[in-house]
Amino acid sequence: MREITLDNLDDIARGAGILGTGGGGDPYIGKLLAREAIRRHGPVRVVDIDEVPADATVVPISGMGAPTVLLERVPNGGEELAALRALEKHIGRPATHLAPIEIGGVNSMLPIACAAQAGLPIVDGDAMGRAFPEAQMVLPGLIGVTNSPMALADDKGNTIIVDAVDNHAAETIARAVCVERGCQISCADTVMRGDQLADGLVPATLTLAERLGAAVRTARSEHSDPVGAARAMLDGIPLLTGKVVDVSRRTEGGFARGRAVIEGITDDAGRTLELDFQNEHLLATRDGATVATTPDLICVLDSETGEPVTTEGLRYGLRVSVLAAPCDPRWTSPGGLALAGPRYFGYEVDYLPFGG
Amino acid sequence: MREITLDNLDDIARGAGILGTGGGGDPYIGKLLAREAIRRHGPVRVVDIDEVPADATVVPISGMGAPTVLLERVPNGGEELAALRALEKHIGRPATHLAPIEIGGVNSMLPIACAAQAGLPIVDGDAMGRAFPEAQMVLPGLIGVTNSPMALADDKGNTIIVDAVDNHAAETIARAVCVERGCQISCADTVMRGDQLADGLVPATLTLAERLGAAVRTARSEHSDPVGAARAMLDGIPLLTGKVVDVSRRTEGGFARGRAVIEGITDDAGRTLELDFQNEHLLATRDGATVATTPDLICVLDSETGEPVTTEGLRYGLRVSVLAAPCDPRWTSPGGLALAGPRYFGYEVDYLPFGG
Repeated sequence: MREITLDNLDDIARGAGILGTGGGGDPYIGKLLAREAIRRHGPVRVVDIDEVPADATVVPISGMGAPTVLLERVPNGGEELAALRALEKHIGRPATHLAPIEIGGVNSMLPIACAAQAGLPIVDGDAMGRAFPEAQMVLPGLIGVTNSPMALADDKGNTIIVDAVDNHAAETIARAVCVERGCQISCADTVMRGDQLADGLVPATLTLAERLGAAVRTARSEHSDPVGAARAMLDGIPLLTGKVVDVSRRTEGGFARGRAVIEGITDDAGRTLELDFQNEHLLATRDGATVATTPDLICVLDSETGEPVTTEGLRYGLRVSVLAAPCDPRWTSPGGLALAGPRYFGYEVDYLPFGG
Repeated sequence: MREITLDNLDDIARGAGILGTGGGGDPYIGKLLAREAIRRHGPVRVVDIDEVPADATVVPISGMGAPTVLLERVPNGGEELAALRALEKHIGRPATHLAPIEIGGVNSMLPIACAAQAGLPIVDGDAMGRAFPEAQMVLPGLIGVTNSPMALADDKGNTIIVDAVDNHAAETIARAVCVERGCQISCADTVMRGDQLADGLVPATLTLAERLGAAVRTARSEHSDPVGAARAMLDGIPLLTGKVVDVSRRTEGGFARGRAVIEGITDDAGRTLELDFQNEHLLATRDGATVATTPDLICVLDSETGEPVTTEGLRYGLRVSVLAAPCDPRWTSPGGLALAGPRYFGYEVDYLPFGG
């Protein structure tokens, strides 16, 4: 993939929805925005991390908020560009490349839409290799890149620059603004030089998303096993196949938090899987035992179609297959687990090494 | 007064406390900060509005938050300068003059402290001629001056720039940040050119505050009538002299809101005055009849000493004299009343023309 066009956008969105572990917002809304931007401004050039000049100014673009709200309050499509322009003005130089901050749902699509609008290339990689709910949960944070200055823009034309002393402070300030603005705001932050990308980004995740999305689509059209195709590409393990029997969720402090219960069917009959989520699926407990935890990926797929199921898309009776897949190894370092391990999210369990 | 020194600071703080109509924060805390800044950096030069060059960059400086919180959480004294520097960086030019946004309590003192630290003159005037609780309640708003860009700084070193589409939006965004940061934040906003000051500021209010403070002090030392001295200088009318018998207050959405009941004594025996406040005293009701409303000044003074009583300083048993004084006439225009009349604050009464 050297370009993102109207032809491969669907695959990227589908794959990013799976990699987004239930979070990052509904890919559908993001896809509409990216499609419209590509239609108007043309395809987006994709560059590998090692193609980016050392002195490049790379700006990750994202939306912050509760995905539940995004379903009812569609963005106007100009917020990300407004955030980018506010950031460029603040740092006194233009962005040369954009990047996704996370490879999940709407947040894989918004930087594509923004890149089309701005006429900039997008880097094939992202700062998480999945999706996470808070702004400081990015690999660049582990190498000393700050998320400040952070530019925020809302759908009314208001922009805000946050220049915080640390990444947690920027997150809490931005989150307060996000909540006040209706739980939805667009962000340009965590600016990197080109020579910081190898350490700061998980490489080739846009390509992975496209391949993953294509594999699911192909398997479905061939009436083979779309869930199996996704699992193979992710080096994943199956956790449970069943139907959703209970979901509780609440929008709290700018997040969609909750829990879902899935009862096994066929081979998994008699087993139960509980999923705890906070925008993303963070903890999987099967028959009372922890079987997968953040920062590893817990992916929920529609059993029949292989389509990703977001945390806000979980509903009673839905047949789903739950997979676990290994996260980028940098996340399992002590610094990585401090940022995004299960205890950070308030769960009383330790990180369970993948497949353990 | 051509300079603010350690010698006239007390008078200014006392007078501004009276003009602040119970709000603007405890003048005591602000005075400590201004005193320390003048001690370290020298006196602050005061210039009249008509002395300011037409192309000057005038920056009002203030603190935002619930005064109740300020009593327990003393600023570090560098927040206003940090907000000023963030604003200067954002607008791309240095401030040539500072000004108070309101002539009330801590917000008369913080710009003095900041002016001493920055080595800048302060303009003799302010944007309200009193104190008001919200950032958009300023006379420059009536002539099209925006409060954006607004720079905010907290006591931890975090700075935020708000660039909003209108003054209400800037207020609500800044208030959300303020609440998240612990109900206390410092602001540099509502930048004016020198040639906008005649329309944007109430002139000579620092001088008025000093004269008012000196008059009260002199009357007290001469064992004459400090409350009467203040009333004469403000062209005010007495509303009630009595003792506080009931106070209810709550900190809500970054404001100190509440109501106080004062029972008349001596000449006012048998009468009752109710005061509604929201950081500032906004409505006075005597024996069931409205007798003074925002935007006119409702000032509460200690009956014995003439010292201003802030809304958070109201307490059971305190002997107080309540005065009303006329606001700047621009506030009683339709635009002024829309910004700061009683109905804006949710009171079901119309503005009562002064003395009416």
